[in-house]
Amino acid sequence: MKLATIRSACVSIRACTSRPGSRFGSIAQGCLPTNSRLTLRTASTAPSSGSSPTLTANFGKQHKGDDWSKCNISMGEVVQNTMEAIATLQRRNPEIQPLLVILQAGEDDSMLEVNKKTAGKIGLNVTQICLAKNCSEDEIVEELLKLNDDPRVHGVFLHLPPTSLTSRVLNTLKPEKDVDGISDLNVGRLVRGDVSKGFIPPIASAVLDLLGKHDAALKGKSVLLVGGHGPLRLALQCLIERSGMTVQTSHWNAKSLKTQVMQADAVVMLSAGNVDILPSWARPEGVIIHCEPALEPDDDIIDSSSRSGLGHLTAAYRVQNVVQSCSRWIQEQQYRPWRLHNLKLQPLNPVPNDIEISRAQTPKPVDRLAEEIGLLPEELEAYGRNKAKVRLSLLDRLHSQPDGKYVLVAGITPTPLGEGKSTVTIGLVQALSAHLKLNSFACLRQPSQGPTFGVKGGAAGGGYAQVIPMEEFNLHLTGDIHAITAANNLVAAAIDARMLHEATQSDKALFNRLVPSVNGVRKFSPIQISRLQRLGISKTDPASLTPQEVSSFVRLDLDPSKITWHRVVDTNDRFLRKITVGQASTEKGQIRETGFDIAVASEIMAILALADSLKDMKNRLARMVVGTSRSGEPVTAEDLGVSGALAVLMKDAIKPTLMQTLEGTPVFVHAGPFANIAHGNSSVLADKLALKLVGRDGYVVTEAGFGADIGMEKFFNIKCRASGLRPNAVVLVATVRALKMHGGGPNVSAGAPLPKEYIDENLSLVAGGCRSNLKKQIQIAHLFGVPVVVALNVFRTDTQAEIDLVCQMAKECGASDAVPCHHWSQGGRGSLELAKAVKEAAHRPTNFQFLYNTEMPIVEKIRTIAQKVYGAEDIELSPEAGSKIDYYSQQGYESLPICMAKTHLSLSHMPDKKGAPTRFVLPIRDVRASVGAGFIYPLVGTMSTMPGLPTRPCFYDIDLDPVTEEITGLF
Amino acid sequence: MKLATIRSACVSIRACTSRPGSRFGSIAQGCLPTNSRLTLRTASTAPSSGSSPTLTANFGKQHKGDDWSKCNISMGEVVQNTMEAIATLQRRNPEIQPLLVILQAGEDDSMLEVNKKTAGKIGLNVTQICLAKNCSEDEIVEELLKLNDDPRVHGVFLHLPPTSLTSRVLNTLKPEKDVDGISDLNVGRLVRGDVSKGFIPPIASAVLDLLGKHDAALKGKSVLLVGGHGPLRLALQCLIERSGMTVQTSHWNAKSLKTQVMQADAVVMLSAGNVDILPSWARPEGVIIHCEPALEPDDDIIDSSSRSGLGHLTAAYRVQNVVQSCSRWIQEQQYRPWRLHNLKLQPLNPVPNDIEISRAQTPKPVDRLAEEIGLLPEELEAYGRNKAKVRLSLLDRLHSQPDGKYVLVAGITPTPLGEGKSTVTIGLVQALSAHLKLNSFACLRQPSQGPTFGVKGGAAGGGYAQVIPMEEFNLHLTGDIHAITAANNLVAAAIDARMLHEATQSDKALFNRLVPSVNGVRKFSPIQISRLQRLGISKTDPASLTPQEVSSFVRLDLDPSKITWHRVVDTNDRFLRKITVGQASTEKGQIRETGFDIAVASEIMAILALADSLKDMKNRLARMVVGTSRSGEPVTAEDLGVSGALAVLMKDAIKPTLMQTLEGTPVFVHAGPFANIAHGNSSVLADKLALKLVGRDGYVVTEAGFGADIGMEKFFNIKCRASGLRPNAVVLVATVRALKMHGGGPNVSAGAPLPKEYIDENLSLVAGGCRSNLKKQIQIAHLFGVPVVVALNVFRTDTQAEIDLVCQMAKECGASDAVPCHHWSQGGRGSLELAKAVKEAAHRPTNFQFLYNTEMPIVEKIRTIAQKVYGAEDIELSPEAGSKIDYYSQQGYESLPICMAKTHLSLSHMPDKKGAPTRFVLPIRDVRASVGAGFIYPLVGTMSTMPGLPTRPCFYDIDLDPVTEEITGLF
Repeated sequence: MKLATIRSACVSIRACTSRPGSRFGSIAQGCLPTNSRLTLRTASTAPSSGSSPTLTANFGKQHKGDDWSKCNISMGEVVQNTMEAIATLQRRNPEIQPLLVILQAGEDDSMLEVNKKTAGKIGLNVTQICLAKNCSEDEIVEELLKLNDDPRVHGVFLHLPPTSLTSRVLNTLKPEKDVDGISDLNVGRLVRGDVSKGFIPPIASAVLDLLGKHDAALKGKSVLLVGGHGPLRLALQCLIERSGMTVQTSHWNAKSLKTQVMQADAVVMLSAGNVDILPSWARPEGVIIHCEPALEPDDDIIDSSSRSGLGHLTAAYRVQNVVQSCSRWIQEQQYRPWRLHNLKLQPLNPVPNDIEISRAQTPKPVDRLAEEIGLLPEELEAYGRNKAKVRLSLLDRLHSQPDGKYVLVAGITPTPLGEGKSTVTIGLVQALSAHLKLNSFACLRQPSQGPTFGVKGGAAGGGYAQVIPMEEFNLHLTGDIHAITAANNLVAAAIDARMLHEATQSDKALFNRLVPSVNGVRKFSPIQISRLQRLGISKTDPASLTPQEVSSFVRLDLDPSKITWHRVVDTNDRFLRKITVGQASTEKGQIRETGFDIAVASEIMAILALADSLKDMKNRLARMVVGTSRSGEPVTAEDLGVSGALAVLMKDAIKPTLMQTLEGTPVFVHAGPFANIAHGNSSVLADKLALKLVGRDGYVVTEAGFGADIGMEKFFNIKCRASGLRPNAVVLVATVRALKMHGGGPNVSAGAPLPKEYIDENLSLVAGGCRSNLKKQIQIAHLFGVPVVVALNVFRTDTQAEIDLVCQMAKECGASDAVPCHHWSQGGRGSLELAKAVKEAAHRPTNFQFLYNTEMPIVEKIRTIAQKVYGAEDIELSPEAGSKIDYYSQQGYESLPICMAKTHLSLSHMPDKKGAPTRFVLPIRDVRASVGAGFIYPLVGTMSTMPGLPTRPCFYDIDLDPVTEEITGLF
Repeated sequence: MKLATIRSACVSIRACTSRPGSRFGSIAQGCLPTNSRLTLRTASTAPSSGSSPTLTANFGKQHKGDDWSKCNISMGEVVQNTMEAIATLQRRNPEIQPLLVILQAGEDDSMLEVNKKTAGKIGLNVTQICLAKNCSEDEIVEELLKLNDDPRVHGVFLHLPPTSLTSRVLNTLKPEKDVDGISDLNVGRLVRGDVSKGFIPPIASAVLDLLGKHDAALKGKSVLLVGGHGPLRLALQCLIERSGMTVQTSHWNAKSLKTQVMQADAVVMLSAGNVDILPSWARPEGVIIHCEPALEPDDDIIDSSSRSGLGHLTAAYRVQNVVQSCSRWIQEQQYRPWRLHNLKLQPLNPVPNDIEISRAQTPKPVDRLAEEIGLLPEELEAYGRNKAKVRLSLLDRLHSQPDGKYVLVAGITPTPLGEGKSTVTIGLVQALSAHLKLNSFACLRQPSQGPTFGVKGGAAGGGYAQVIPMEEFNLHLTGDIHAITAANNLVAAAIDARMLHEATQSDKALFNRLVPSVNGVRKFSPIQISRLQRLGISKTDPASLTPQEVSSFVRLDLDPSKITWHRVVDTNDRFLRKITVGQASTEKGQIRETGFDIAVASEIMAILALADSLKDMKNRLARMVVGTSRSGEPVTAEDLGVSGALAVLMKDAIKPTLMQTLEGTPVFVHAGPFANIAHGNSSVLADKLALKLVGRDGYVVTEAGFGADIGMEKFFNIKCRASGLRPNAVVLVATVRALKMHGGGPNVSAGAPLPKEYIDENLSLVAGGCRSNLKKQIQIAHLFGVPVVVALNVFRTDTQAEIDLVCQMAKECGASDAVPCHHWSQGGRGSLELAKAVKEAAHRPTNFQFLYNTEMPIVEKIRTIAQKVYGAEDIELSPEAGSKIDYYSQQGYESLPICMAKTHLSLSHMPDKKGAPTRFVLPIRDVRASVGAGFIYPLVGTMSTMPGLPTRPCFYDIDLDPVTEEITGLF
């Protein structure tokens, strides 16, 4: 084995770089021939035994069988490898440029020159940040914090005086950008033996290289480290030992230095010493490496020729580390398999109440959950410990990632008590993720806060299938509904204020106020230009409008009797259903009747659920029609000048909120449009994000409101049409209770005790329900070409015979499978059978198709739904409905899909007709349009859009312990 | 120098611990005498030269002059020091118990026994967590995550098989609990030389101890480390070298082992070797230390007697590390000086618009800001990157920390354009913190979102004195106002629903619904018991109530004409000022007139601002009076059964929100009650938290709405009375513009161009304003005994002569100082003079006093304010006001402080009377009470509580770029 000192090699390189004509000139010119090598000289200057005289070998020509030829003292090799690495990296990610930032105090010195040249040769981008020579620690830290946050920076070279390399400075730099491997964490990683995340200090790599780290013959050879101290020496010691050599260390003033040098196979001088290691000390074949000059900035080194060789190699390894950092960063950006860490669930019997179960489980911090499912820290916006919004940039990052399976949870026609679609959804993902270890995501709707304090309680699931903390889920969450309320009511205030101003001002006064002179200049705002364009006025100079044009521009001329926009509030406030506004004298008699809806009934909520980007949401908000002018033209939010403000109010609401189930599996909560006047599904964006996150083999389980005839039909025809997503399976939730009702059981109503038919076994009622409603709902799903799994949500009173009967009949009715679920009492474990059945069904080929083509006339689309889905014989339009259809068709809304506003308590329009009614004609009382959301909604009967409070609302039991901050009474 | 092998010492200790009667028995019994020591034996078994035969020295008796006596081979010393450390720690923090958790796989072994015994001796609490012997990495990680989050745990001993000590396991444990110092970060810290945050591995401490680390004579001695590998050997090597010795390393199979042993002063065997180091190898005075057995669990070691000595010492050092960790934790809990890192500001000229300035500055991540000002991570609840709620537990943690100086920013009577109190407040803290390096905090009110879209724009300050990001400040913030809206409107819905149910049901039906039978049991909820008590009914069994009692319990019997509770909305919606509700047929004709206020006018907002704890807030919410029964009794939120739900809705809103200024200094944004019908000050809690955080020498600058006659008066008489806090100085903001107006200048109104008097120099108008309004406002502050600094908010049009005149006259009028401020154009640098003046004033002794005693009759309190503050000759009560005062006095509200509802545009009740009006009688039109907030508010004129939208509201210019997400048009 022969190792070489780099002393003379350095000279060669420097000489070359300053003399382009020389043999190594090409190095300096930024293009290193792949076979160029360093010139070397052994420690022994005098000719000695044949093995190692003065060496000036060109290793490009290998000395076969010679140990020397195996030494990797090869600047060129590092350079070439690194260039290839960059090329590969850029082939795959053309937009990415690895970048090294040099943070320096003062001017360039020769070490920096070497680094910059080397980087230039290899093709690495370098940015220099030059601080003053006497800069403070704070200034350095400030720069480092900026560099840490800058995703374009892959490595930082701290070229600072040793006194500035304080512990704080070294450890402020993010370890993943610490390409010199000098932060505590990276030093520790190296010393402990795990460099997969850290970096080998470039100088150590260079020395190891010179020691010939790849040479098997090195095993057992001894290396003496002389001088130096601290982490570098220890790092080198580790690395050398790990490559199979033994290490001795010595100080310069050790008495035994000479003996040790004589015994060593190689000597590495880590610091400048006061003892000259005489060549005669070293063994003939011994190698001496000086690395002191490469370690330090060389302000006051005179013999600059003696040091830049190792400096070059070090610089090359630094570049290599930057490229490695960059490719790790790219790796980070890729889809990452989940490392989901489930929360253990130990269900109690009897099952405690919901908030007790929720409180008994400690959720994972949401940032930990996010990391487990492959979200990057910068994609997360935490809202406290347990909730976080997820940025839509995720869709760009993972755009090439294939989607997972897409599963819809729908239900048979429910009793007024609800049949547990949310709990089935949550139980299913708990089973899939926590028990089958298949990535899965539940996408739920955000519940309205109003009913939480009214009758219904929360909507976080229940029993051992819940989203936690349930109180955060059920209350403000991350403020999306509040944002919708603010946006909705700004539109309402704008409508009434505009009508007042139009009623009390001349065209000219209105124009002067709407287009005021600011510092003597009058111009239209962009939103006003849009209005002018819609009016067919292509002028942009306010002064050029004719009086007629001014009038049509300034007057929306809203017909007070044709304003469709309601105010909203997220409270069950029945007294606001119908009100008269404008009764204060300041409103000058402009009174009118209007009303408030519950906030989730706002069209803005439907838009939030259907938008697939910020831009799409903004466009939809602008398109919203708030009423009609006296001349019959639709008036939009953009006409009111308010659409930009609406987008601003909604900019955070568009990001889905990440939470978790009781078993620590991820849940998106996002949007919650009404299932009657809107489509009742959670958001397109949440589904899209989740489908990317679960990965190809994962499952996204999303839920549709009401029975399958409403929620599922709208999911397919409206939501899937908007999103372009295609479902793989439908889970149809049934209960023995609801089946008995459909089979002819007595009336079920909230608040009243259940009749005994629902408590005792009654197979014939169950069979009746299966034959009618269950069968019909399965058939509806099949209309769309999607397989159905029936999930029987088991209650304590259900008998085995009843359960078996449902499962058997469901399969007879065409379900792919039908299984009982016990998630409420057992959590995910209780839904294992369902999870397996869903997995099986979702892998079947689907033949998805929409029920109707949107180009069909509105009446035909309504008729198709009524006949094929509801089982009606035909539809019957009221005169009002007929004229509205004509109006919308004429306004260009004909091709919008249909969103039926029908009772969810029957397949028909008659809530008391259970089972699968036939021979009825569906009356269409009225037709309305949510133009921004993008659907026409025919009204079948009257829809309440504002719930009320009962005599004893839930809030009587809701309380907060001011000391423990524990909430009681929520369910 | 002599060092000892621990071999035989081990035997001694084990023997002792199992034989309580022996010399060391006391060790086993948990109380180690301070002079007990270990029994030791040198490497040389045969008697040799006088220096070191078999040693069984009791080092308690020091061998004077003997090297041995200096050796710290002293289990006892470690034990004693650690016991003393615990004692000291517990003397200062009696409630804290240092706790070591042993995380083990399988049963106890002897190493664990040693650790537990040692811990017991020292008095350390130990908890064992026993996983299965074959537990998975995930299970270990799960436990570690729990231990990380548990503040009671100060150290974790990972007693796991080596194969389980994976990189993931080692690095999952928080470094601050890694008392074995084996995580990458702690290894790196040790190797790099900074153990101030990490831990020295106990085994390394033990070996060092045996090597006599404190012995100066050790310098230059050589230590040979034999065997072993990895971080422990390197750690030892570092530590030994740092103590001045030299280190050689050798493998067991090194040829030179014998020579090295012979040459070494001490030999440390790090692993069990296959070569027996014959005693004869060692130098006579040489020392041999075996540490292999102490390194590993000893399941299969036969000669257990040979290892527990070092094991004991190691265990003692482990305990020492736990105690160190605990005291670091306690240290962390203490007040910590700020390490504020300011954002550099480079003001442009001309000054760009507000949102451009805000956007050009990158705020620090809020968690970084929080760390800089000494908040603990667990005290922070982030809301995205730029805002975080701060938990009130901070008040407990820092309860013994002295408060900083408390400075109020108030203003002279403003023009309708406002005179810039917020910008002065922000400029002042920017100057104090970023330029004078004095800790300071601004406490601002959260602005209502309504006006942001109306006329006023935002309230984040302006120019180079802003809170950033200003759009987040001005929009939803952290949802507090939304929470208030929800809570306020739940009360309103409850009122109307209750009236409907009472109107349509019999007593019995109401009672059955209000106290329903649940599973056959009827009982009152706690909130109902409270109502019964207020009614003087002490029964708790529903069945025992008489029909009369049932009737008074179930009927609130609200008089519809005397309902004072309004609904609120955070939108400028003038059409809701007066409305009729209940017009839908479902409300059965129960229509009534009512109205909406802007959300910040809600009494709940005033409560949020005045509450000093969650409990206090909850009590105030319960006390709110919503109207009067037909029999004249006040009806409260608690009577409605809704107060628990209100507390739940408000539980997060009570935590102030942390943001930052343009220069990176901290700001609390919290609460924003109306300054007319409420007190117009930010929250008591924000001020209290900030006063603790800034520390004794810091400044909290809080702002009061409107002119000093209103905002400041209420700050002193209402807010300071509620909080118990005492102000140190008042900053009175003036502008040349407002002074000219008070000096007789023409009318100033929003929207209209300024008359030329306000643009050109006019010293006589300025002087007139100083002599009248400015002088009077200074006098008002002096009524309370607080020094005043006048801050002249300089506008571009102000001349130097005008500026000089104001400053001179202000001082003549009694101001401590008066300085011009240029924060708008220059940021904190422009307010340096003000900061210095405030510092000086705040250090003057104050003589704070309230203006009136609350026990005075209501009329007298009103008269005192009118005469002393406003300069009125007297007050004149309307008959309605008179009868209300009688009613409130009779209801027990007489001792509430007074919150005047008066115009802010004049010291009088007449907005057009500028300067300092005299000779007027203040008419009191009506008197109302906010019983929950805790004040009586007399109405002087009409107060609008719902702003409107102009013809061209701000929202015309507000827009969002859907690609960059940048907002434009906010100001």
